[in-house]
Amino acid sequence: MVEIIIPFKPHSPKSRLSDVLSLEERNKLMNYMLLDVIDTAKECSKDVVVLSSGKIGFAVGCEVIEDSRSLNEAVNSVIDKNVAIIMSDLPLLTREVLERFLRCEGDVVIAPGRRCGTNMLLVRDERFRVSYHYGSFIKHVKIAEMLGMNITIFDSFYAWVDIDDRNDLLELMIHGEGRSKHYLEKIGFRVDYKKDPILCRMQNSEVHTIEKSTG
Amino acid sequence: MVEIIIPFKPHSPKSRLSDVLSLEERNKLMNYMLLDVIDTAKECSKDVVVLSSGKIGFAVGCEVIEDSRSLNEAVNSVIDKNVAIIMSDLPLLTREVLERFLRCEGDVVIAPGRRCGTNMLLVRDERFRVSYHYGSFIKHVKIAEMLGMNITIFDSFYAWVDIDDRNDLLELMIHGEGRSKHYLEKIGFRVDYKKDPILCRMQNSEVHTIEKSTG
Repeated sequence: MVEIIIPFKPHSPKSRLSDVLSLEERNKLMNYMLLDVIDTAKECSKDVVVLSSGKIGFAVGCEVIEDSRSLNEAVNSVIDKNVAIIMSDLPLLTREVLERFLRCEGDVVIAPGRRCGTNMLLVRDERFRVSYHYGSFIKHVKIAEMLGMNITIFDSFYAWVDIDDRNDLLELMIHGEGRSKHYLEKIGFRVDYKKDPILCRMQNSEVHTIEKSTG
Repeated sequence: MVEIIIPFKPHSPKSRLSDVLSLEERNKLMNYMLLDVIDTAKECSKDVVVLSSGKIGFAVGCEVIEDSRSLNEAVNSVIDKNVAIIMSDLPLLTREVLERFLRCEGDVVIAPGRRCGTNMLLVRDERFRVSYHYGSFIKHVKIAEMLGMNITIFDSFYAWVDIDDRNDLLELMIHGEGRSKHYLEKIGFRVDYKKDPILCRMQNSEVHTIEKSTG
């Protein structure tokens, strides 16, 4: 049975969302995304652990390990012969996608994220070490190569879309099905499909258009 | 044998790239992306056709149909019992991804793109009609449902990333392997991995940093 580790940082700032969500809303969204990922993980494994950098103030329904060290130190201390490390801000992840990921062959399976990130890692060789941040996808490929390991790149947009800015909220509203999407709906978010889809928010009976980022 | 149709618009403006590429460079990049997609398509089918809205001024190495009508009219006129419609700005598409796509079951297989777009469509029922633009992914799902067809959503980030703005150029530089990536390298583009990966361009012996879009 694969162990699924979900690193989590309570009160993560997600500051690129600060122009469309208040601090409280951002925290709630982060928490709902964590719960979405836990739900999906529990459908695929009985051994799901949240690896949190601090105290979590709500029930998550699975084991929690608190470890205040850096993300890399904390994750490397739990690397094992059969462990998957899944980021907590992947609310589009579904059981089917995670099952396909866990079935992939290879000593190391990497699901890349935007800007050279690593959204999911499956490690079947305990010598592997993670190095998140600063182009981790390329770094993880190089680490595995240096250790002579077989690598599989996992191709999925559901695993690729993490929630970092307002464009991602649009993707969550279009493709999401879990609690994070329902939370956004509850606080007034809608997609206007009249022309090119745009994110809107109902506030005080008014519709506010949330423009996309300028390229 | 599936017929692969690649719609193409010569001299597409791609105006969201105008702050980092000149008009001539944008046109060249579009052409190289088309050639990349044709290369990949020809590895999967002997029946590859470019459906162009106007005259193409260079050799593409496959059949070209010129049709100046709207994208929807042109594509609907070639819908058949076994046809795949692949957008021309998907330079990360590989043979493996396209083969996996073509193997999917369903009367209609849809590979979504960003902002509710449709990047690839596989149609096995000639009653299906396309409706691109304005949230086409949702529209294509609805059209297939209304016609009682089985739909498969194809999950791939290589098929998801089209080239629309400078953030996409970074993804092309990180994950690309074909002519479009080499063209960007040739005109000076590099990725600086010292911290968070950023796109740079060498021009007149100087390195210019291309900042990411603000969220």
